[in-house]
Amino acid sequence: MEGFKYTIKCKDKNTNARTSVFSTPHGDIKCPIFMPVGTKATVKTLSPDEIKETGADIILANNYHLFLRPGTKFIEKMGGLHKWMNWDKPILTDSGGFQVFSLAKEKRFTKDTTKKLVKIKEDGVEFSSHIDGSKHFFTPENVMQMQSEIGADIIMAFDECADAGSNHTYAESAMDRTHRWAKRCVKEYNKIQKNRKNKQALFPIIQGGIHDDLRINSTKFMAKLDLPGIAIGGLSVGETKKEMYHILDVIKNHLPDDRPRYLMGVGSPDDLLEGVERGIDMFDCVMATRNARHGSFWTNDGKSQIKNSAYKESQSTLMKGCKCYSCKNFSASYIRHLFIEKEMLGLRLLTIHNVHFLIDLMKKIRENIEKGTFSKFKKTFLKKFMKNNN
Amino acid sequence: MEGFKYTIKCKDKNTNARTSVFSTPHGDIKCPIFMPVGTKATVKTLSPDEIKETGADIILANNYHLFLRPGTKFIEKMGGLHKWMNWDKPILTDSGGFQVFSLAKEKRFTKDTTKKLVKIKEDGVEFSSHIDGSKHFFTPENVMQMQSEIGADIIMAFDECADAGSNHTYAESAMDRTHRWAKRCVKEYNKIQKNRKNKQALFPIIQGGIHDDLRINSTKFMAKLDLPGIAIGGLSVGETKKEMYHILDVIKNHLPDDRPRYLMGVGSPDDLLEGVERGIDMFDCVMATRNARHGSFWTNDGKSQIKNSAYKESQSTLMKGCKCYSCKNFSASYIRHLFIEKEMLGLRLLTIHNVHFLIDLMKKIRENIEKGTFSKFKKTFLKKFMKNNN
Repeated sequence: MEGFKYTIKCKDKNTNARTSVFSTPHGDIKCPIFMPVGTKATVKTLSPDEIKETGADIILANNYHLFLRPGTKFIEKMGGLHKWMNWDKPILTDSGGFQVFSLAKEKRFTKDTTKKLVKIKEDGVEFSSHIDGSKHFFTPENVMQMQSEIGADIIMAFDECADAGSNHTYAESAMDRTHRWAKRCVKEYNKIQKNRKNKQALFPIIQGGIHDDLRINSTKFMAKLDLPGIAIGGLSVGETKKEMYHILDVIKNHLPDDRPRYLMGVGSPDDLLEGVERGIDMFDCVMATRNARHGSFWTNDGKSQIKNSAYKESQSTLMKGCKCYSCKNFSASYIRHLFIEKEMLGLRLLTIHNVHFLIDLMKKIRENIEKGTFSKFKKTFLKKFMKNNN
Repeated sequence: MEGFKYTIKCKDKNTNARTSVFSTPHGDIKCPIFMPVGTKATVKTLSPDEIKETGADIILANNYHLFLRPGTKFIEKMGGLHKWMNWDKPILTDSGGFQVFSLAKEKRFTKDTTKKLVKIKEDGVEFSSHIDGSKHFFTPENVMQMQSEIGADIIMAFDECADAGSNHTYAESAMDRTHRWAKRCVKEYNKIQKNRKNKQALFPIIQGGIHDDLRINSTKFMAKLDLPGIAIGGLSVGETKKEMYHILDVIKNHLPDDRPRYLMGVGSPDDLLEGVERGIDMFDCVMATRNARHGSFWTNDGKSQIKNSAYKESQSTLMKGCKCYSCKNFSASYIRHLFIEKEMLGLRLLTIHNVHFLIDLMKKIRENIEKGTFSKFKKTFLKKFMKNNN
C-alpha cells in the first residue's frame, strides 16, 4: 500500500525474533513495539505530550467505542482523529469486532437472559450498545467505512472473536465466517483507499481458537490476502498462557515474513518476551494503563502495589535507574500519598511509569536482538521479574 | 524577616490598587497575584510542570489536611514539602483554622447532634478528624510547629473563623480569642525561626465577621504585630458579595502599606478585581480548580459549561486568543468529548484553562495598574464578563 513500507533489520539466529521498521504516513515504528491503548481517543489520564515522553511511537483507538460516541462521521468532520486528539504520530484502530462480542454481550439493558443481545448473521452482527442499549448493525463493509472516517494509519478487518472455550465445531464456523468477512473487508477497503489521500494499511485477523489445525488454516488464508500486515486475534481472551504460547508456536513458521505481525490485546512483560521469541512485531494491551489506575506498577523485580506500606516512607523512585517522568521527579512515598488521597496526579504518574516500562522493555528487546543476545536477555529478565509476578 | 522583602512598584491614583513584588526564599511573586490551591500537596489533576506552565508563581497547601495525612513530621522527614512534591517556587500553607471549624464540624462520625465535634478552649481547639473521627488538639503553638515541619515560605496564624452569620457578641469574642492566639503564634514563631535555616514569613489573620467596628479593631491589632504580611480571613464564607466588598472598604485605609495583604479564599474573576481595587495583593481560591472538574470554565464572556451541546461540534478553542496549553492544543469539541466520556484528561485541560485564566487576569491587572488604566480595564472587563456570570 502506498505510504507504507516494511523493512526487516535483523533476525535472531536462535528464535523467530526479529527487528524491523514499519513506515506509515505518520512516521516510522520500530518493531517489536508496544502500543499504548487510547480506546476513546485518549490514553487514559495522559496528554499526547506525555504519551510521547514515554517513548510511544504509535497508539491505538477503538472503532466500536468511537462509533457509539462521538461517532465516526463526527470525527471525520472534525478533521480526523489525528487532528482532533492532537496526535501526529501513527494510530491503529481496532475494528470493534472483539468489543461487539464482549461489551455488547453484557446484559446491562435486559434481565431476560434468553434474549440474545448479539445476533450473528452472514451479512454482519446486530448488537446493542453497552451505553444505552440502542441497536446497531456492523458489517465488514461499514466497519471499513467507519475506520476510514476515523482516519487511522492502520485499520483492522472485522472478525468474529469466538469465546476462548469454543469447541472445534463452533471455532471453525466462526473462523470460516471471519475468512468470508475478511474477503469482503478487502474488497471494500480497496474501493475506499482509491479515494483517500492518506492511505491506510488493512490488517486481517487470524482466528481459530485454541485448535492447532484451525489456526494453521487461518494463518495461511490471511497470509494469502497479501495485505500490508497480519494480526493474530482471539488470544489472551481466557485461555491459559501455555495455550497461547502453544498456538503461537504452531503458527510461527506459517506467518508471512514480509509484513508486520501483530498479536492483539497482549501485553504483560512476560507475554511480550514470549511473543517476540515467536516472531511477533506488534503488541497492544490495556494492562499497563489499567493496572496503573489500580495502583499496580512494574519494575524489573516484578509487580508491585503502590499502596503497600513498604512505600510509605520510601524516598526512592518507583524503580532504580528508571528514566520515566515519574521516576525522574517524584519519590514512591509521594506517589503513594497521591493514591491514598485519591488524587488524580497519582494515576497519571503510575500510568506514565507502566507505559514507559513496556516501551523501554521493547527497546531493550530490539537492542538485544541486534546484538544477538535476545535469548540470554529474555532468560535473565524473566528470572528476576517472574519471582514477584503472581 | 530574613529572606523576605516587599517592594511597592506602582500605586493606582484613583483606587487602592497597587503593584508590588514580594521576595521569598523560593523566589519573587508579582502582586496582585492569584495562588492556585494544592490542599493535599497537589493542585488537583496537575503536575508541577503544568502548574508552572499556567504562569503560577506560588501555590497553597493546607496544614489541617497535611497534619491528618500524611503528617507534618512525616513531610519534614521527606525533606519538606518543596522537595517532596517537587515544587521549587514559593508555597503558602494555611494554618487549618478554617478547616478545623468547617470540615471537622461536619457530623460524619456521630448521629448525636448534641455532641459538639469542635470544642474551643482558651488553649486551643479540640476536633475530630473528618477522615476517621480521631480526636486532635490544635493550639497556636503546635500549629506553628507543624507549619515549620511542612516548610512553606509563608505560614498563617491560627485563628477562629466564626460563622458568617455570627452576631456582634460572638464575633467579638472569636476575634479577641484570635488576637490572643495571634500573639502566642508570634511568640512561638520567633522561637522556631531562630533555629530554621530557611526562614518563613508569618501572616496574622484579621477577623471580626461583618461588623465594621470589629474589623477595624482587628486590622489595627494585626497591623501592630509588625509581621511580614497581613491576611483577611472570615470572608467569602457565606456573607453576600456586597457585604464582603463593604468590609474591604471599611478596612482598606487601615491596612498597613508596607507589607502584602492577602484576602483568603477569594477568587472569582469579579472578586479579584474588586479586591485589587480595595488594595488586596494576594488571593487564593479552589473555585478555578473545583469548577473545572465540574465542567465549568471561564472566558472573557463569563462562565460556560463544557457539556453544553453548543460545544459538541466546536472546532474553536475554549476561548479565542487564550494562550493556555489546553487552548493551544485542543478544540472545545474534543474537551467536551473527554467530559462526556468521563476521561481524566478533560478535567486536567479545563483545570489548566481556569487557572491560566485567573493568572492571566492578574497579569493584565498589573499591567493596567502600571499604565494608570486599572479602573477603565475593570469596568470594561466586568461589563462583558458579568453578562454570563450568574
